[in-house]
Amino acid sequence: MTDPAGTATRRSQPLRGMRIIEISSYVASPLCGMTLAQLGADVIRVEPIGGGADRTRWPLAESGTSLYWSGLNKGKRAIEVDLSAEAGRHLIGDLIVGGGDRGGIVISNSDRFPELSFETLSARRPDTVHVLLTGRRDGGTAVDYTVQAATGFPLLTGPEDAAGPVNSPVPAWDLTAGLYLAVGLLAAERHRLLTGEGQRLRVALEDVALAAAGNLGYLAEAQLNGTSRERDGNHVYGTFGRDFATADGGRLMIVALTARHSRDLFAATGLTGVVAALSEALGVDFDQEAERYRHRRVLGELLAGWFETRTLAEAEEALRTTRVLWSPYLSFADLVADDARLLRDSPLMEEIAQPGVGRHWAPGSPLVLDGELSPPVAAPLVGQHTEEVLREELGLSAPALAKLRENGVIPPHDDERDPG
Amino acid sequence: MTDPAGTATRRSQPLRGMRIIEISSYVASPLCGMTLAQLGADVIRVEPIGGGADRTRWPLAESGTSLYWSGLNKGKRAIEVDLSAEAGRHLIGDLIVGGGDRGGIVISNSDRFPELSFETLSARRPDTVHVLLTGRRDGGTAVDYTVQAATGFPLLTGPEDAAGPVNSPVPAWDLTAGLYLAVGLLAAERHRLLTGEGQRLRVALEDVALAAAGNLGYLAEAQLNGTSRERDGNHVYGTFGRDFATADGGRLMIVALTARHSRDLFAATGLTGVVAALSEALGVDFDQEAERYRHRRVLGELLAGWFETRTLAEAEEALRTTRVLWSPYLSFADLVADDARLLRDSPLMEEIAQPGVGRHWAPGSPLVLDGELSPPVAAPLVGQHTEEVLREELGLSAPALAKLRENGVIPPHDDERDPG
Repeated sequence: MTDPAGTATRRSQPLRGMRIIEISSYVASPLCGMTLAQLGADVIRVEPIGGGADRTRWPLAESGTSLYWSGLNKGKRAIEVDLSAEAGRHLIGDLIVGGGDRGGIVISNSDRFPELSFETLSARRPDTVHVLLTGRRDGGTAVDYTVQAATGFPLLTGPEDAAGPVNSPVPAWDLTAGLYLAVGLLAAERHRLLTGEGQRLRVALEDVALAAAGNLGYLAEAQLNGTSRERDGNHVYGTFGRDFATADGGRLMIVALTARHSRDLFAATGLTGVVAALSEALGVDFDQEAERYRHRRVLGELLAGWFETRTLAEAEEALRTTRVLWSPYLSFADLVADDARLLRDSPLMEEIAQPGVGRHWAPGSPLVLDGELSPPVAAPLVGQHTEEVLREELGLSAPALAKLRENGVIPPHDDERDPG
Repeated sequence: MTDPAGTATRRSQPLRGMRIIEISSYVASPLCGMTLAQLGADVIRVEPIGGGADRTRWPLAESGTSLYWSGLNKGKRAIEVDLSAEAGRHLIGDLIVGGGDRGGIVISNSDRFPELSFETLSARRPDTVHVLLTGRRDGGTAVDYTVQAATGFPLLTGPEDAAGPVNSPVPAWDLTAGLYLAVGLLAAERHRLLTGEGQRLRVALEDVALAAAGNLGYLAEAQLNGTSRERDGNHVYGTFGRDFATADGGRLMIVALTARHSRDLFAATGLTGVVAALSEALGVDFDQEAERYRHRRVLGELLAGWFETRTLAEAEEALRTTRVLWSPYLSFADLVADDARLLRDSPLMEEIAQPGVGRHWAPGSPLVLDGELSPPVAAPLVGQHTEEVLREELGLSAPALAKLRENGVIPPHDDERDPG
């Protein structure tokens, strides 16, 4: 199911034999499900008839199919059920508590249905593992962008003279929340394997962001040192790192984290002697990370003069044999240029045929197990596996399915759907 | 060990009985270890004598102790061993392959020591689970900032008229890589519980970023649609969302994801009639997400006029009773203002006494299990548990420890250390 192409072998699929019901939308909980599907779990995404709120989320393919939905639901099965009807919710409850040893696990980003609550489900199946994402920790809603605003980082993002907060297009809190959910689910599943006990697990988007701000030292710094860190463009805090423009309009990010990196960087740019003289004149040891940071502007200007008079290719050539950490800035257009050469070169990426979209390069799992990548598997269409799942997982007969269709609990067959 | 305060009960600690050796530095692999420690695993961080490269990473407390190191190593035990000596590496190898059912698991961000490679360790203990973080997928080094540059997002971050790329201070790829490592480790551990087999697991920072760019639809959009998405300030792509300034210099992020959100937003700002007239004149249905996005500038300007003539408090008051998604922008200084009131109010945060730093508010785990939070536990000092771990985990006698000290494989006792 989770590997229709049959290309992944056992080694990259340690979660084979685990079945997860996912009632979700947007990024975090779908990413949790997809991450586990890529490790071999059979993940069944449940949506209301017509699909979840995110089924039309931009970006779209020309056909109107969401590239976002397709990207976050790869390798799952998908079913459509009328969740506004009690009969529909009961069917999903049956799915969750069924499945024997494989089953009893649900991921959701909503707790509005009493039939699908931890209390109801664990009364039906005591070892239920119930994983819930919320926005706020009180259960209220929030999205990555509002959580970004609440958690300090946008006021430290961007050029020194930026007029206001700068949000990031990377939904870092959605991504990390989705992965925390997966970590928690697997921890609870381990506990279940060892003790037979189920668990109820919750993660709030705002807690994930606040935890990161604390874990990285931002909160303790503000509380203890009473200093507010200032915006500092693309300088890396506490070490030497910034971006540089080249003569031909290229742009590179350079980081010299260690003494060795920085000596390499000065050597590659012909600045060893100049930096040594500066070091002596200032009485400063640039082998010390803190000193490279304190003098980042003068060191940066010296280096900028070198980069400004080189092409991107020349700068790359000079850096290639060093230990300096560097990368050119690439746009998404650059990443797919020359018939997607850079994606073709990456073992992470494979071309998939995505229903409703067409052939394109897509990432597999970034987890490599025993040298084996779990390749990308196309996402289903919304509701593609409704009858298959109800038949295989709940043992429903053809007449039982017909009755569900008749009552509108599941959608009619495609050829009977109202084209409007 | 992982809960010296004894405040967490069994429910929030499903990983009790798992022991992990962590040979790591910076963010990703330490976050992996800390996340598992917060779930009850006994995580032993191994560092070279004097501490890892990140032991002095900024921000620092006044004492010079790293708030970054302390933040990312909470709840672990820490040992110091001379990793440049074969005897030191053997000791760590012994630790990894020991521990019976609890042991055999290692997380590392380096594979430069043959004694600690998967090959060597799995020859000694066939069910070893070996988890490795690399920068590049070929094993080369990279850091979050260079991976940001390589993966498109900084060219979409910031105001429309930004001159160059804008990196984010949130190390999103470090954070997600660390959590992917934890997901993979737990998946491999489940496989080991069920089959007795070990596994080797690798994650590259650059793959994590590329996977996110693909999963969120950015790569497919660039490849299939041939359009390059433009920088668009704090507008949320494909829906209605942006920031607004208030009369008193406040700033809010507002997102209206659904028709209900947007109707609520227009009602709260007294714009229902104006928007209805606009909708009719333009022949556009603002209940449609795509239309709200297409007309984001005119809708945004109408709303901006309202926010500009209200104080932040008035705007918040008007939004509070709606379903609109919103948050004021808060700086880290705001988060710790009034004696850290906002942190005190959060169940995620508790005050800890951090050796070398002092008392401050720190986050526990954002995973809530059966209603129970795993509270923060102070980080150890570098090498604090060296002799305890070698005694308890390897059964070394006092004379054996004395010999290791004498040979410089482990540090001398504090009172014998060279103060220089």
